[in-house]
Amino acid sequence: MKMASANQENIAGPLARAWGWFKALLEKSKSKVVDVASEAKKLGQDDPRRIIHSLKVGFAITLVSLFYYFDTLYQGFGISAMWAVITVVVVFEFSVGATLGKGLNRGIATFSAGTLGVGAHRLASFSTERCEPILLGLFVFVLAAAVTFVRFFPRMKARYDYGLLIFILTFCLICVSGYRDDEVLDIAHQRLSTILIGGAAAVIICIFICPVWAGKDLHNLVATNLDKLGTFLEGFGGEYFIESGERESKDNKLSLQGYKSVLNSKSTEESLMNFAKWEPRHGRFRYRHPWEQYLKIGALTRQCAYRIEALHGYLNSEIQTPLEIRVKIQESCTKMSSESSCALKELALAMRAMIEPSTANTHIENSKIAAKKPQILDQDRLVARY
Amino acid sequence: MKMASANQENIAGPLARAWGWFKALLEKSKSKVVDVASEAKKLGQDDPRRIIHSLKVGFAITLVSLFYYFDTLYQGFGISAMWAVITVVVVFEFSVGATLGKGLNRGIATFSAGTLGVGAHRLASFSTERCEPILLGLFVFVLAAAVTFVRFFPRMKARYDYGLLIFILTFCLICVSGYRDDEVLDIAHQRLSTILIGGAAAVIICIFICPVWAGKDLHNLVATNLDKLGTFLEGFGGEYFIESGERESKDNKLSLQGYKSVLNSKSTEESLMNFAKWEPRHGRFRYRHPWEQYLKIGALTRQCAYRIEALHGYLNSEIQTPLEIRVKIQESCTKMSSESSCALKELALAMRAMIEPSTANTHIENSKIAAKKPQILDQDRLVARY
Repeated sequence: MKMASANQENIAGPLARAWGWFKALLEKSKSKVVDVASEAKKLGQDDPRRIIHSLKVGFAITLVSLFYYFDTLYQGFGISAMWAVITVVVVFEFSVGATLGKGLNRGIATFSAGTLGVGAHRLASFSTERCEPILLGLFVFVLAAAVTFVRFFPRMKARYDYGLLIFILTFCLICVSGYRDDEVLDIAHQRLSTILIGGAAAVIICIFICPVWAGKDLHNLVATNLDKLGTFLEGFGGEYFIESGERESKDNKLSLQGYKSVLNSKSTEESLMNFAKWEPRHGRFRYRHPWEQYLKIGALTRQCAYRIEALHGYLNSEIQTPLEIRVKIQESCTKMSSESSCALKELALAMRAMIEPSTANTHIENSKIAAKKPQILDQDRLVARY
Repeated sequence: MKMASANQENIAGPLARAWGWFKALLEKSKSKVVDVASEAKKLGQDDPRRIIHSLKVGFAITLVSLFYYFDTLYQGFGISAMWAVITVVVVFEFSVGATLGKGLNRGIATFSAGTLGVGAHRLASFSTERCEPILLGLFVFVLAAAVTFVRFFPRMKARYDYGLLIFILTFCLICVSGYRDDEVLDIAHQRLSTILIGGAAAVIICIFICPVWAGKDLHNLVATNLDKLGTFLEGFGGEYFIESGERESKDNKLSLQGYKSVLNSKSTEESLMNFAKWEPRHGRFRYRHPWEQYLKIGALTRQCAYRIEALHGYLNSEIQTPLEIRVKIQESCTKMSSESSCALKELALAMRAMIEPSTANTHIENSKIAAKKPQILDQDRLVARY
């Protein structure tokens, strides 16, 4: 009797364990799916343009793939029609500037490398049959190595990196496949025209269906960053002079953390600027809008954010200023902080609206006057001492 | 006589002007060429691995293009051999980690999208002839839109962005071209094997000829950044307490600017970390080296750099501390600064050598003791006042 039940347990044991394991796996994957779904929802809510962009990409690819479905179109291009699909997939980026930049890079690089490739191919064909592949190999090696090195130039990397890559690619393909196929010119022509069609489809859909302008994003980002610094300074004076016992919740402190994202904004601003330079006139932005100026403002904003980060350290510092001194400096420090905040917020507003800031200078003057007061106090104290 | 000479001048005028213009153009382009050459020389001298990388790329592409030159190899693959060249050009990156990451992304994405594409193609072929292109178009639209949205997930973007792009690309190509060509499986097989060959060539050359390890670069970068902060603090005490009249040259100040590059190191560190994660065991780094820890150290280093940026502001500040106070705090501040510098430099050295830092804690204690002195002075002063 005992043995039988033990046996039963033995059989039930692994089964129960397997069932438990399976249930745990199910639970785990269920929670994983829920996590991913909520993350996706958050991504979509944070910036609904992401959903629109995804639909745009799907639409553009489906549109270009019509080439294959319709026989009349297909006859013209044959297998090269593939390049239109490839171009759309690779070129279609989130912002208009990025798409235009990639499209132009791809188009120009394909054209120039194609011309050069055909030239190299002709040149090699003048030599003997045995020399031809050696010559072509040499061309490919020299060009690939040279252009790869050019990609290290910071200015080239920022704006033409993709073009240089495509340049190597096209040159190698034409040079190398040219050795087989005497219809090089024909292939080059077909490929270029399909790439043009694919690129044009991507650019047109990107511009005319809910466009995302990198320039506008840059404009807003720089203004928002200024605003964030202002928000910190607005709250800082009050927060600093609260007695340690009185600090109830961390809510207020959290609202002061907004400036943290400013600290690492450099790479985002630089890439947005590089995209914005490709963009045509749109909204209130001219074709040659002074985009570099935004980088300068951005750099100054970060300078300011570094100081604010140091200020923020005082909120949680172990070493607290003695109460007597705090009382002395409270008024002028709070004033200084709030006046600086007003100046920053005014600048952010003026920038957003593209107008001359009217009262920012007054706020800065007020802040400077407030800043001089503790110094005077200090001098008094020193005089009293010595 | 006069008229003739005027006439001659009239003829000579444009000629001379054209000559002058041509000479100016020549001069200008000459100086441009010299500029570019010196920049290229500097790029090569700063990091000679760049030159080696360029030669490696040239070599890899030439090697793979042999496929076309040798008939026996070409017979096997035909036009698909093109994909080997494309793969090498696109996948070959500066560091081993980046190359491996791109190669694996490309390989896995091509394989999985290929399988899915063939499946979708089969599924669509069960329907009527008129429905087939509509069904295929629908598949392409849904998949392209969904995967494009997945690319917005930050974790996916960091490591699998390229793979997702290739996934869309391959799926669309197979789905769409499959409508034409019934030898889809054959094409998929050929393309996959040429991509494997191209990827393998790129990875092998990247690893076995003067490899550039992203992990090693990250390791050195983080240690160097710590060291730079140490160098600043080493010089800061001395520089700050020099009388304004005595500051002779800007040389010393320039040597204190090294820390500036630390402020914006975040994106470099993150991309190096993402590459390093793909790398196999090398040198003193295991396969699952704790790369995330470097990011944590990097973040703390930047925190420190922000404070140092604020400190640096005092060197050029208009508002100078009164001399009496400066004299009082000079000793302890210099001590504090030099002890912190010693601690940072010790940490950097220990990190580079991968050993436990031995005396860093002592230096930090010394620095804390020195930091407490001015406070005691301050309290004394306050007591004297009240």
